[in-house]
Amino acid sequence: MEKISVFGAGSWGTALSYVLAQNGHDVLLWTHRAEQAEEINQHTNNRYLKNIKLPENLKATSDLKAAVNHSATFVIAVPTKAVREVCSAIKDELDKKALFVHVSKGIEPDSLKRISEMIREEVPPQLFEDVVVLSGPSHAEEVVLEQPTTVTAASENTASAEKVQDLFMNHYFRVYTNTDVIGVEIGGALKNIIALAVGITDGLGYGDNAKAALMTRGLAEIARLGVKMGATPLTFSGLTGVGDLIVTCTSPHSRNWRAGNMLGKGKTIDQVLEEMGMVVEGIRTTKAAHQLSEAYDVPMPITDALYAVLFEGVSTKDAVELLMGRMKKNEMEDLINLL
Amino acid sequence: MEKISVFGAGSWGTALSYVLAQNGHDVLLWTHRAEQAEEINQHTNNRYLKNIKLPENLKATSDLKAAVNHSATFVIAVPTKAVREVCSAIKDELDKKALFVHVSKGIEPDSLKRISEMIREEVPPQLFEDVVVLSGPSHAEEVVLEQPTTVTAASENTASAEKVQDLFMNHYFRVYTNTDVIGVEIGGALKNIIALAVGITDGLGYGDNAKAALMTRGLAEIARLGVKMGATPLTFSGLTGVGDLIVTCTSPHSRNWRAGNMLGKGKTIDQVLEEMGMVVEGIRTTKAAHQLSEAYDVPMPITDALYAVLFEGVSTKDAVELLMGRMKKNEMEDLINLL
Repeated sequence: MEKISVFGAGSWGTALSYVLAQNGHDVLLWTHRAEQAEEINQHTNNRYLKNIKLPENLKATSDLKAAVNHSATFVIAVPTKAVREVCSAIKDELDKKALFVHVSKGIEPDSLKRISEMIREEVPPQLFEDVVVLSGPSHAEEVVLEQPTTVTAASENTASAEKVQDLFMNHYFRVYTNTDVIGVEIGGALKNIIALAVGITDGLGYGDNAKAALMTRGLAEIARLGVKMGATPLTFSGLTGVGDLIVTCTSPHSRNWRAGNMLGKGKTIDQVLEEMGMVVEGIRTTKAAHQLSEAYDVPMPITDALYAVLFEGVSTKDAVELLMGRMKKNEMEDLINLL
Repeated sequence: MEKISVFGAGSWGTALSYVLAQNGHDVLLWTHRAEQAEEINQHTNNRYLKNIKLPENLKATSDLKAAVNHSATFVIAVPTKAVREVCSAIKDELDKKALFVHVSKGIEPDSLKRISEMIREEVPPQLFEDVVVLSGPSHAEEVVLEQPTTVTAASENTASAEKVQDLFMNHYFRVYTNTDVIGVEIGGALKNIIALAVGITDGLGYGDNAKAALMTRGLAEIARLGVKMGATPLTFSGLTGVGDLIVTCTSPHSRNWRAGNMLGKGKTIDQVLEEMGMVVEGIRTTKAAHQLSEAYDVPMPITDALYAVLFEGVSTKDAVELLMGRMKKNEMEDLINLL
């Protein structure tokens, strides 16, 4: 039994707390909203996970200091936008080395930092044991129904990844280890862009043939960028690459797909964000990926098309037609350019 | 304008004839059933493509000799099981060299031949210009609605692949070329096995997380076998690999997925085959893949599990639980073994 602090009580932070508490660990889940902490202490979190009874041994708090003092293993489960702020606040209370596990999927625009890089910048070395990224095809809604789920724990340091594997592993939640942090973080972040694009084409009425083509080319452009950034090509064929892409593009649970779908059906971005009421990571990630594509000089046509829709006022119809009409004569040439 | 003969008037043969006729070619579509030829000459083929009006310039015949004499470009669109018989009958009428384009997705059990190999065995060199495989994520039902679709034309001889590309290419049907015939044929055939397995898990009530994991591992085991047989690893990241896998595992049009789904819901194989009323290629391919796995000494756990269900009377529930419980500690180790 280990003591673990989870920061962020959205659907994913809550689902992971569910797994950890069920594995017998002493979990304290932090949220900045006191009334949500109270609700979780009554064993529900209905805004994020409807009709789920949370384990009795899962406790919540809105006192950040209490959460920091509770353990030396921190699961950071806040939106990408909040990672720096939360980690900086944690650091201010911290008086020992801690292991950071992050489970968010994004890239910071402008700085173009991955999440593990942001955490390393916010927490000084003397307070920092290691950072592990936990990622993979895993809808929170299915995890709390104890549906079989597989994810990857990645760190350059295998011992850290294995520690995280041991904490989370159980009969329905299977954790694999990997050392390719860059590949895992890039795959997880960028698949949200493809899910938005697929949602748009689905919303516009395109069929499954087009969807499969878009996902194939999407995976290719993610891999192309990732490899240039230092990732291992094979990672994109794994759970955090093609696996997460599939679940995000084809499941009604995916909020990025849902947001894209509403855009394809003619809603504006503001209308979509208001209706969703949750963070849609892919929108901010599109901006970062567009910048990465320029910084690393990697052609990313799907990212470009989505950027044009989200930030340059191009209509979804025009963007998709341009994308679909784009021609290459030789498939291998196109793919070889990536890997 | 070219003369082209299409053999096989199932949904895919008819959809490809639709594309070719629309591109202005003089297409003669052969079926062994006279009444079906008559119906097609009245511009419908309702058993296979409901409520679709076929192009006026598409003609059909049940006279094999007439179809052979019509052209020197033959599209072979019959089930894997019928390829040898139809090609042998064509050869008996043939008095010139012909280009064979095959569009079926299977492997012959026992002989373990790919379809292009079977055609080469049936047609002697003096009557044989080349064979090109046309494959990719392409439901016939969407092609005849002129939904954007992308496929690959593969031949060791690029000129042949480009000839096929030119025949089929139009604004909604985009054809890429590739030289990796083995990779394209193996990817197309074996994804049907994964679709059956995914259909079973969906039928048993597993969620999208499990489905994504199964598809990821499925692609891995296909690639592992294909590479050992001489395919290029990258082909499995392309349209005929991951693309076709996605469309076959996630679309309600997929008959292999549908057959698996019925099995997962408790029907017997005989009941499923009777209800489908169409060929389910994946069942026969499972037998061939199981034999290939032994012949090439490649571990293929999903194929093994499906083989146990289809041919050894193991219950779907037992087979899937065994598969899901199978553990590897390191994801990369598992993937690297493949590629």
